Amino acid sequence: MSQYQALHAHFEKINDLRHLQAICGWDEAAMMPAGGGAARAGAMSTLGLVIHDLLTDANLAGQIDAAGGESLDQWQQANLREISRAVTAATAVPADIVRRLGLATSRSEQAWRVHRANNDWQAMRPLLEDVVTLSAERAVILGEAMGCSPYDALLDEYEPGVTSATVDRVFADLKAFLPDFAASVIQQQTSQPVLPLQGDFSVDKQKALGVEVMTALGFDFDHGRLDISHHPFCGGVPDDVRITTRYNTGNFVESLMGVIHETGHAMYEQGLPVDWRKQPVGSALSSGTHESQSLLMEMQAGRTREFLEFLAPRAQRIFLGSGSNDPAWSVDNLHRLYTRVERSFIRVDADEVTYPLHVILRYELEQDLISGKLAVKDLPDAWNAGMQTYLGLSTAANFEDGCLQDVHWPAGLFGYFPTYTLGAMTAAQLFAAATRQVAGLHEHIAQGEFAPLLAWLREHVHSKGKLLSFDELMQQATGSPLDASFFKSHLRTRYLR
Amino acid sequence: MSQYQALHAHFEKINDLRHLQAICGWDEAAMMPAGGGAARAGAMSTLGLVIHDLLTDANLAGQIDAAGGESLDQWQQANLREISRAVTAATAVPADIVRRLGLATSRSEQAWRVHRANNDWQAMRPLLEDVVTLSAERAVILGEAMGCSPYDALLDEYEPGVTSATVDRVFADLKAFLPDFAASVIQQQTSQPVLPLQGDFSVDKQKALGVEVMTALGFDFDHGRLDISHHPFCGGVPDDVRITTRYNTGNFVESLMGVIHETGHAMYEQGLPVDWRKQPVGSALSSGTHESQSLLMEMQAGRTREFLEFLAPRAQRIFLGSGSNDPAWSVDNLHRLYTRVERSFIRVDADEVTYPLHVILRYELEQDLISGKLAVKDLPDAWNAGMQTYLGLSTAANFEDGCLQDVHWPAGLFGYFPTYTLGAMTAAQLFAAATRQVAGLHEHIAQGEFAPLLAWLREHVHSKGKLLSFDELMQQATGSPLDASFFKSHLRTRYLR
Repeated sequence: MSQYQALHAHFEKINDLRHLQAICGWDEAAMMPAGGGAARAGAMSTLGLVIHDLLTDANLAGQIDAAGGESLDQWQQANLREISRAVTAATAVPADIVRRLGLATSRSEQAWRVHRANNDWQAMRPLLEDVVTLSAERAVILGEAMGCSPYDALLDEYEPGVTSATVDRVFADLKAFLPDFAASVIQQQTSQPVLPLQGDFSVDKQKALGVEVMTALGFDFDHGRLDISHHPFCGGVPDDVRITTRYNTGNFVESLMGVIHETGHAMYEQGLPVDWRKQPVGSALSSGTHESQSLLMEMQAGRTREFLEFLAPRAQRIFLGSGSNDPAWSVDNLHRLYTRVERSFIRVDADEVTYPLHVILRYELEQDLISGKLAVKDLPDAWNAGMQTYLGLSTAANFEDGCLQDVHWPAGLFGYFPTYTLGAMTAAQLFAAATRQVAGLHEHIAQGEFAPLLAWLREHVHSKGKLLSFDELMQQATGSPLDASFFKSHLRTRYLR
Repeated sequence: MSQYQALHAHFEKINDLRHLQAICGWDEAAMMPAGGGAARAGAMSTLGLVIHDLLTDANLAGQIDAAGGESLDQWQQANLREISRAVTAATAVPADIVRRLGLATSRSEQAWRVHRANNDWQAMRPLLEDVVTLSAERAVILGEAMGCSPYDALLDEYEPGVTSATVDRVFADLKAFLPDFAASVIQQQTSQPVLPLQGDFSVDKQKALGVEVMTALGFDFDHGRLDISHHPFCGGVPDDVRITTRYNTGNFVESLMGVIHETGHAMYEQGLPVDWRKQPVGSALSSGTHESQSLLMEMQAGRTREFLEFLAPRAQRIFLGSGSNDPAWSVDNLHRLYTRVERSFIRVDADEVTYPLHVILRYELEQDLISGKLAVKDLPDAWNAGMQTYLGLSTAANFEDGCLQDVHWPAGLFGYFPTYTLGAMTAAQLFAAATRQVAGLHEHIAQGEFAPLLAWLREHVHSKGKLLSFDELMQQATGSPLDASFFKSHLRTRYLR
C-alpha cells in the first residue's frame, strides 16, 4: 500500500465516523426528546475525541510528506492538499487551548440563550470576553502555522484561500453602493403597497407545498428528508441529506423560502462527486460557496417573476382550493411581497438589499475584536455607531436586537459572517453566468423546469468538490473572479425600475 | 487511577460509541431514505470495527486481572465480571472467523428476503449451510473458552448463566402440557364466536390511542419516542428509548398490542440503574428477561379482563366517537378477541398458548444443527415432522411457512429462540409475584393505574441491571427459580373456565 493509499483509508474511516456524527446531530435537533440531551452530549463528545485522535495521529505528518513524492492524479493531489490542511488545523493548536475554548464557548452559548432573552449585556460580557480572548489566542497560533494574519487564519477555516484583502475589496464596493441604493428602493416601494395573504396555512398543507417545490427544484427524496426543527438547517451526509424547517401557521411565506434555501444547500451536497464523497476533497468547497447555492435558489431563482409564475397557482391550489381570483395571490403581489426592502435590526430577517450591511458591520467589528483593537466592553457602542452609519438605526441599550442577536460570537464562530455576503455575491455571479450559458433558463423556471439550472450547477460547482480553489472555480464557471458588480447589477434590475 | 477506574473509563467510551450506533440503527429502520443505505452500511461497519478494536485492546486482560485484586463494592465487582465477559467474547473467536461469518450472514440474510418470498429452499440451502458451518465452528471455540458445550456457549450470549439443562427441564414440562391443553382450549372456543370490530382505524387515531396507552403504562416521553418501521422494535438508549410499530388501517388490534409489547421493553430500558447506564453492569440482564418485560405488559397485564375494562371505553371514544353500544366493543368480546387460540404456521402470529410449541421446535432443531446431528439438507423434513408432532400441521414443500419463515438462522442467531419462551414463563412468574405482593394490582389496572405495577418491576427487575444472575433475580423477586408451573397455571386460569 502506498502512503497515499494509507492516508486515503485513514480519512475514509474518519469520514465514516463523521457520517454518524452528522446523523446524530440531525437527530438531536429534529427527533431527540429533551431528556436524551445529557447522555447524547456525552456520546457526541466521545466521538469528537475519537475523530480528533485520528486527525492528530502521529504517523500522518510523515505519510503526507511521503505521499507528496508519489505519482498522483489531479484529484489525488487535491485530496492530499485537503488532508494536509485538515491535519494542520487539527494539530496546530495545543490541546489545552482547544479544551479551554470548547468549555468557554459551550458555557457562553448556553448563557447567551438566557441573557439575550433578558437583554442582559452585563451578564453576557465576561463570558464573551473569555471566548474572544481564547479565540484570539488560537487565531495567533493558527496564523503562525499558516503564515497569515490571525483573522485570515480564522476566515480560512470557512473560506479556504480567501483573504481579508479580497473581502475588503468586494465589501468596499458594497459599502459605497448599498446605503443610498436601499434608500432609493424603500422610497420607491412606499407607492407599491403589498396585499396580505390569507388562507389555511396548516402544517400539512405547507409541508405538501414544500415537498412539491423541493421535488420540482430537483431535491432527491431517495437521498434525503424534510423535517421540522426550531432552527432550520441542512444536515446529514451527501447520500442522505436532512433539511429542516419550521412552520408558522399564520404565514407560509417564510417557511417556504426557508425550504427553498435549505434545498439549495441540500442539492449541493447531493451533487458532490460520487467517487470522492468519503474523502476531504469530495466535500463542499467553502461556507460561502455553500451559501451561494442556497441563495441562488432562494434569492436569485426563487424570487424571479418567472418562479412566482410557477409558484402562484400551486400555492393557491393548496391553500385556497381552486378557482380563487384574490388579487393578493397574483404574481404581481407575490413579487412585491418577496422583494420588500426595509431597514431592520435583525440580520436573519433582513432582505437581500440590506443584509450585506448587517454582515459588513459584523465583519469589521470581529476583525477588531480578534486584533484587540476593540475591547468587548466597548462592543455595544461600536455596534450602535455602525448601525447608525449603515442602516440609520439606534441600538443604544437594545442589546438583544443589537450585539447580542447572533449566536456566532458566543459560539466562537469568528470569520464566519463574511461568508453570508460572499455567498450572496457568488450566487448573483453564478446565476448571471447560468442565464447567459443556458438557453431559455428563465422560461424553464416559469414552467417549473429546474433541471437545466441544476445540471449547470452540477457541472460547474457541485461535482467539483474541493478540486479547485474558489478563484479557479469562479473563473472557470463565470469567466471572472468574484466581482461585486454582478450582485449590484442584480439588485438594480430587480429593485429599481 | 486504579486499574478498575481505567476499565470504567474505557467501557464508558465504548458505551458512548454504542449510543450513537443505537441511534443510527434506529434511524436506519425508521427514518433513513432507501438511497442512504449503502453509505450508512459502510459507516456502521467502520464504527463496529472501532468498537471491536476497543474491546480487544491488548491491555484489557492485564487490567482485568489487576482490578480483580482491588477493593471493589458489589456493583463494581459485578461490573468487572461483565467487563471480563465482554472482553472474552470479543477476543475468543479469531478475527478471520468473525469476518467470514459476518460475510456469510450478511449474504444469507439478504438472500433470505428473496428466497423466502419465492418459497425457494434449494437456493437458500447452500447459504444457510455456510452460516451453520461457521456458527458451529465459532460455537466450538467459544465453548472451549468458556468451559461449556458449543450450544450452551451460544445460548449464554443471550441468556448468561442459563444452560440447555435448565431450558430442557422447563421446556419438557411445557411439551408434556401444551399440545393437549391447546386442543381443549380450541375445542372450547368453537362455542364462543368473536364479533369483528369496525371503525375508523386511520393511522392518526391508532397513534393517539397508542400514545394514550403508553402514557398510562408509564412510558416516559421525555426519554423516548414512538415511530413507524416495517418491523416493530425497541431501540435507542436508556435515556432515549425509541420504539416503533406499523399500522394496519383495517385493524387496530395488532398494532396496539405491538405498541404495548414494545412499551414493556422500553420501560425496562428506562428503568435501568441511572448510575450504571454507561457500564456493562447497567444494561439489561438478558434477552429472556427483556422479553419477560414486554410479555408481562402485552400478554400478562395487557390481556386481563381488567386491562380491557380500561381499554374498551378509550378505544371506542377514539375509533367510534362517544355513545356507541356496539356489542363488538364490549369487554367480553374484546377479551375473546385477545385470547383466541389457534394452531398456525407462523410463529410471530401465534397466540401465547401455541407460541412455545413453535419455539421448542426451533430449539430442538438448532441444537442438532450446531452439534452436526442434523444436516441443513434434512432441515425441511425435520421441521415438517416437528410441526406434525407439536401442532398437527404439515409444512411439506411449504418452506416459506416452514423452516424459511424466520430471519434468525439466516442471520446467524442460534441460541436466541428459547429466550422468547423463557421470557413468557418469566413474565408469568413475575406477574404472579407482583399480584401477590402489590395490594389491589388488578383493580389498579382496571382504573388505568399502572404505577404500582411499574414500581414493583422497577424495584425487582429494572433497577438491578446485570447485578444479579437470572437465578438470583428470580429467587429474590418471586421466591423461587424459574418454574414452568406459573405459566401453566396462568394459561389454565385464563383459557379454561
